Amino acid sequence: MKTYLECIPCFVAQALRAGKLATSDEYILKELLDEVGDMIKSIPLDSTPVEIASGIYKTIREKTGVTDVFKEKKYQHIQEALRLLPQMREKVLCSTDPLLTAIRVAIAGNVIDLGMSKEFDMVHDIEIILHQDFALFDYDLFKHELNKTDNILYLGDNAGESVFDRLLIEQLKKPVIYAVRGAPIINDVTIDDAVDSGLDQVAQIISSGTPAPGTILSLCNESFVEQFNKTGLIISKGQGNYEGLSTTSKLVFFLLKAKCPVIAKDLGVKEDDIILKASSKGQANEQ
Amino acid sequence: MKTYLECIPCFVAQALRAGKLATSDEYILKELLDEVGDMIKSIPLDSTPVEIASGIYKTIREKTGVTDVFKEKKYQHIQEALRLLPQMREKVLCSTDPLLTAIRVAIAGNVIDLGMSKEFDMVHDIEIILHQDFALFDYDLFKHELNKTDNILYLGDNAGESVFDRLLIEQLKKPVIYAVRGAPIINDVTIDDAVDSGLDQVAQIISSGTPAPGTILSLCNESFVEQFNKTGLIISKGQGNYEGLSTTSKLVFFLLKAKCPVIAKDLGVKEDDIILKASSKGQANEQ
Repeated sequence: MKTYLECIPCFVAQALRAGKLATSDEYILKELLDEVGDMIKSIPLDSTPVEIASGIYKTIREKTGVTDVFKEKKYQHIQEALRLLPQMREKVLCSTDPLLTAIRVAIAGNVIDLGMSKEFDMVHDIEIILHQDFALFDYDLFKHELNKTDNILYLGDNAGESVFDRLLIEQLKKPVIYAVRGAPIINDVTIDDAVDSGLDQVAQIISSGTPAPGTILSLCNESFVEQFNKTGLIISKGQGNYEGLSTTSKLVFFLLKAKCPVIAKDLGVKEDDIILKASSKGQANEQ
Repeated sequence: MKTYLECIPCFVAQALRAGKLATSDEYILKELLDEVGDMIKSIPLDSTPVEIASGIYKTIREKTGVTDVFKEKKYQHIQEALRLLPQMREKVLCSTDPLLTAIRVAIAGNVIDLGMSKEFDMVHDIEIILHQDFALFDYDLFKHELNKTDNILYLGDNAGESVFDRLLIEQLKKPVIYAVRGAPIINDVTIDDAVDSGLDQVAQIISSGTPAPGTILSLCNESFVEQFNKTGLIISKGQGNYEGLSTTSKLVFFLLKAKCPVIAKDLGVKEDDIILKASSKGQANEQ
């Protein structure tokens, strides 16, 4: 997905929001905004927003000296999600379509996004998403491909959300490789977060090596790219992974809530819509 | 009022929003954002936000070649407010305290602000403000000063809002000078807008000469500054005028709705609160 003009003020706002978590020193924060302002002219609109965000968060780390600004928040969200896990598992298991309910719960977890300015309430938002209509819904194709494949690559997104990914992985009933970011970026899930979320009990965890808050293949490590290319079914969670992979030639299923107006516009849906969408390759196979 | 760090992402967002009203050319808009980004490092936090906004909107005019981006919107808002004027006047005249109701209506008009990202619904917002409690309410002092003075300087804010200012001016029952901006800036009221709003029938209209979306005395013309210094009672409408005059040593009554979190913080109130507040000079006189 290309970077839209609307992403630019959002980058500046994100820099301030993340910067303020790292320091309350107004002088450092102003210097951070000065530098982010300077970066705007070097943003090519044909790059993906996650590539740009990668540079913005690098600047935040350098200016504030804090490597993992969201560390504490990630821990809190994982703990909160773990507390909710048993009742969510019960919802999945007691539903008429446990796979679909697990997909909904996994998407509901996607509200935990600290790159966004929106507030969220985990319990309240999950309840809404459990009953919300999908704006894009390639579920039949998803089940068909799930049935065919003997391995799955699951691209994680945020810490906390990762806990609910477990419920979907349990319903997939196939070997799953769960890929995480290569280093802390925003509140995205890393290897440590994935283990804290209990994902090592249901999947093999690997690092994609990306320093960006999304999957950009050119920034990923070789072994991840190899895995990506050879896996039959890829599940991509969240906005960041969509931004990096929206034009992929592989069959990828995007599961997300369109939390920002730009992503919603790119997907042709409304803000806050929920999505289970196959990449164009999947659409082409179906025709 | 000083510029807060939170104002900086807001300036970038405002530039894009106003720029898009002037042109749909993505190349020009990107160049505009590049230039606004470059300007961040020259923003001193001890200047007022309206001084900075003045430079931002100058850049928008220069980059897009459009002098009065909001011209059409201002016209629409004045027409819409004129249609509502008779029923608003009736509300004022039929109320138990016409002066206070006129103050409320004048503040309600302050929702018409195109510098803000918030949507507004004139009819709906007026109804709310007619019944909303004031967060700061120096009404007794205001009536006392109104009683004493033989002339009033009324600092206008936005076009459209200006129509409702008329109802308050009618209730003041004293000679009023209504001051407007020196040139089109955002949707702020200019001489033409004030005449279109019918204010020439109830007040003498003068230009403050300011190119900024607020009253900054150092940027105003000499005759305005002279008038400002010699007038007994000054009424200042809206956020922009507050930003420029919040630390004035003159007695000024600020009438506004705190539409942005930064202004609310500076005033010590909550976002969306309504205010009738005397400047410190007024507070000191009262003690």
